[in-house]
Amino acid sequence: MTASTDGALEDDVPVAFQDPGYREAVVDLLGVIAYGEISAFERLAEDAKLAPTLEDKVAIAAMASAEFGKVALLHERLTDLGADPFAAMAPFRGAIDLFHEHTRPADWYEGLVKAYVGDGLANDFYREIAAYLDTATRDLIVSSLEDTGHSAFAIDRVRAAIVADHRLGGRLALWGRRLMGEALTQGQRVAAERDALSALLAGGVDRPGLDLAAIGRMFTRLTDRHAERMAELGLAS
Amino acid sequence: MTASTDGALEDDVPVAFQDPGYREAVVDLLGVIAYGEISAFERLAEDAKLAPTLEDKVAIAAMASAEFGKVALLHERLTDLGADPFAAMAPFRGAIDLFHEHTRPADWYEGLVKAYVGDGLANDFYREIAAYLDTATRDLIVSSLEDTGHSAFAIDRVRAAIVADHRLGGRLALWGRRLMGEALTQGQRVAAERDALSALLAGGVDRPGLDLAAIGRMFTRLTDRHAERMAELGLAS
Repeated sequence: MTASTDGALEDDVPVAFQDPGYREAVVDLLGVIAYGEISAFERLAEDAKLAPTLEDKVAIAAMASAEFGKVALLHERLTDLGADPFAAMAPFRGAIDLFHEHTRPADWYEGLVKAYVGDGLANDFYREIAAYLDTATRDLIVSSLEDTGHSAFAIDRVRAAIVADHRLGGRLALWGRRLMGEALTQGQRVAAERDALSALLAGGVDRPGLDLAAIGRMFTRLTDRHAERMAELGLAS
Repeated sequence: MTASTDGALEDDVPVAFQDPGYREAVVDLLGVIAYGEISAFERLAEDAKLAPTLEDKVAIAAMASAEFGKVALLHERLTDLGADPFAAMAPFRGAIDLFHEHTRPADWYEGLVKAYVGDGLANDFYREIAAYLDTATRDLIVSSLEDTGHSAFAIDRVRAAIVADHRLGGRLALWGRRLMGEALTQGQRVAAERDALSALLAGGVDRPGLDLAAIGRMFTRLTDRHAERMAELGLAS
């Protein structure tokens, strides 16, 4: 470990940042999470229009605001790393916008399932990656992904709706599979285009990496948690 | 002044609340402000789609989240007053929804002018009413109306756009007048329907009221401030 001797710099820049590829990957990761939260805000605000009651509308607007509230800290860290937050987000707009375009909810319940299952999946994936990062970056990412306490709302509403209309359960189960498929498609697209981000998982100076078998186990964990969330909603996965 | 002797109740319920009409008016006022902020959130989130750049989109989404962030305190106070927040907001949905329906921005700049001029006008009006209320309610209302620091953004963007396209200035000046007209129309509708709220301005136990001349002066102040805001945007009023 080397100690920082220049007080004018960040007082605890981890040694991992001496590798320019690592810095680039962290900038990518913070950029994709920040843009993901901005577009989650937009999508939830759009879903709020479909809310059957004013109570539901307020609940979903609260989720939207909570997502947006996490963007500022991510932008700050990007600026601290000498990156422009908007330039950092730009490479991920295509994939994330396309994900949302291909998974436009047809009604209120598809919106709720998407908010719960789609965000849950993305957050699990970012958490998996964060485990391979320096402590400061990891803590920032984990806290920016914290459930803002609204999962219970989605679970409650979806379960009640399925009880009232059994056919809805079948449709929403298919919807959950489509969300998973589209997330994998766009995730692979990002991995193919962003070398630094993919290289991150392979490890580097001062950081352990993942071999293929470990990556396989990671996908198994993501799939298992997706199935758990679907089950919480009362849906087959 | 009477002192509260029951520690289980609110520790400083003002004497004005002994008048049931006063309580009803405060519930109305908190309800209309809360619903106004929820619909401001929705409208700003909608305008974010028109943003020409991602920077603009983030700026307007931040305004939307800030508006929504004020709702929780108003709802808490309504609950403290023994009112159901959603029942308190319900009577104002018609007028506020109609205001937004009649003033749908045709483009990004109309949206910015509406956010700045429309919200400014509503906030001035609520502040005028708040001056006649007990201190605790007044402080809550005034803090819930605080500019969240985004006015400078609207002014900057609109002024730059007018310099680049002079015809835009003429169109936006007309738009500002339409916003004022529609706000007065819907405001009068609310005043006609909500007796307690209108009676509030006439004063009561422990509170001074307004005579017709004072109401006239209040409207002059509102109009003057509207003209100032239009001038700040570089627009004739």
